[in-house]
Amino acid sequence: MKKVVFVGLGLIGGSFAAAMRGFEDCQIVGLVRRQATADYALEHGIVDAVSMDPMEVLPEADVTFLCMNPRQIVNYMEEHKDHFKPGSIVSDVCGIKTAVMEASKVLPEDVDFIGCHPMAGTEFSGIEHSFPTLFRNAHFIVTPRPESKEENVELIKRMAKHLGCRDIVVTTPEKHDDIIAYTSQLMHIVAAAVCDDAELFQCRGFEGGSFRDVTRVAALDVDMWTELFSMNAPALSRILQRMEENLHAYRVAVENCDVEQIHAKLTYSSERKRRMNLPGPGQFTLEELENN
Amino acid sequence: MKKVVFVGLGLIGGSFAAAMRGFEDCQIVGLVRRQATADYALEHGIVDAVSMDPMEVLPEADVTFLCMNPRQIVNYMEEHKDHFKPGSIVSDVCGIKTAVMEASKVLPEDVDFIGCHPMAGTEFSGIEHSFPTLFRNAHFIVTPRPESKEENVELIKRMAKHLGCRDIVVTTPEKHDDIIAYTSQLMHIVAAAVCDDAELFQCRGFEGGSFRDVTRVAALDVDMWTELFSMNAPALSRILQRMEENLHAYRVAVENCDVEQIHAKLTYSSERKRRMNLPGPGQFTLEELENN
Repeated sequence: MKKVVFVGLGLIGGSFAAAMRGFEDCQIVGLVRRQATADYALEHGIVDAVSMDPMEVLPEADVTFLCMNPRQIVNYMEEHKDHFKPGSIVSDVCGIKTAVMEASKVLPEDVDFIGCHPMAGTEFSGIEHSFPTLFRNAHFIVTPRPESKEENVELIKRMAKHLGCRDIVVTTPEKHDDIIAYTSQLMHIVAAAVCDDAELFQCRGFEGGSFRDVTRVAALDVDMWTELFSMNAPALSRILQRMEENLHAYRVAVENCDVEQIHAKLTYSSERKRRMNLPGPGQFTLEELENN
Repeated sequence: MKKVVFVGLGLIGGSFAAAMRGFEDCQIVGLVRRQATADYALEHGIVDAVSMDPMEVLPEADVTFLCMNPRQIVNYMEEHKDHFKPGSIVSDVCGIKTAVMEASKVLPEDVDFIGCHPMAGTEFSGIEHSFPTLFRNAHFIVTPRPESKEENVELIKRMAKHLGCRDIVVTTPEKHDDIIAYTSQLMHIVAAAVCDDAELFQCRGFEGGSFRDVTRVAALDVDMWTELFSMNAPALSRILQRMEENLHAYRVAVENCDVEQIHAKLTYSSERKRRMNLPGPGQFTLEELENN
């Protein structure tokens, strides 16, 4: 029986652990800092066992998922580098990969670090907001080291499939961070920037679905996103600049009341969106999922 | 029995007409241009009767909702100003109000024009995408003329309540357009601008819920939104400029990798979002609705 340990049972760690129910022959263990989290996890059947002592758990873990903020993950690997089981897998679930993979180099050679990023979340945090279907239909990104064992990568992939993820993409940490600056980090900054407008509180009663959708993630976990942004600053700066330019081009067309230009720009953007043809959350059937 | 006419049975007109089922003692009539739309509306029970002849329908309508694009609404009032029933209400459902209310001045004095904006929609258009619960929990904005009859405004409000709207806000067309530039038009331009990024098609497999949410409305009705934007250009330009500035301030903090500044800005934005406390779509119980 494999021992799979989740260090940190917040929104992501708690949901991941809970979703692992029934995965192969595994014992799911939570390693937490607060007694309240330990109690909650056991009472709600999120894990099989729980501990607050890394020294008791880490040396026996076949797979350890570090489910904390990026800086904590970096520090945790440094602090516990000699406590992981030889031959085991250490992984993480955070939203940046280059800095974490770089930091993982402190681990001994016989510990296989494989970065993960299950691309799901909500605007809430903490174990009380976790739920096992969080990752259903989500993308699951895996960033192995060049020297990662194929069987270890395969095990992670089977787990991702068990979570109900729509697809599993294997890539480099650099490519991951570059794209995520656009698809995730920019969206959070856009949501935040919309809420910075002076008119925000005057607009109650006037907001429709688009306003709710765009601003949904603005009520974010400030500590975590500060780390995610600052640890991916170059890529994020580049996409922020491009977004400013693209917004500005729209402003010029609107300011000039250039109807032809507005029409041409909207035609261009809306066709690109249609070509992307992104399904909304929950728009997959179980059958589609199984065929993916 | 009142005759309520919907001129245009697209996404909004079709949904509104369908949602009027059971409203007081009314006959719901669709006035359309295409036979296919007429057939669809009758086959799906969206209206009680349908016509393609304005001269047959308008003179007998107690309430006429113009459910077309803004320019068409303006032109329709000019063309049919002498065909509306004396003492009747003419209304519209489009997303800008100043230009439409201004254009409504061509109507005879004994026709009461009352602007409406039910704040709901989807990224689709056409009667085949209409559904009677579209307006459930939405805001319904009413912009009467100063001289509009109170009983007429009350009738419109009862209709909005029948649609299942969460609340009904009465305001001026100028205030409506100013706020809507922010809460609706800016969101559509943000969605479009995100899709303009050169990396769009490379990001498949890396997009999460926030990307889907922010870009959802980008596949918009180009003709309609070109009109909405160009007919509200001054207000929209102002908010676009403010959004650029707010985005830029985030970029400066990120470019400088100024962790304290990023943290302070995210604290500010996320607290504003939490203070807004916007419920997501579908987060109301029927009971809450009834109490509103």
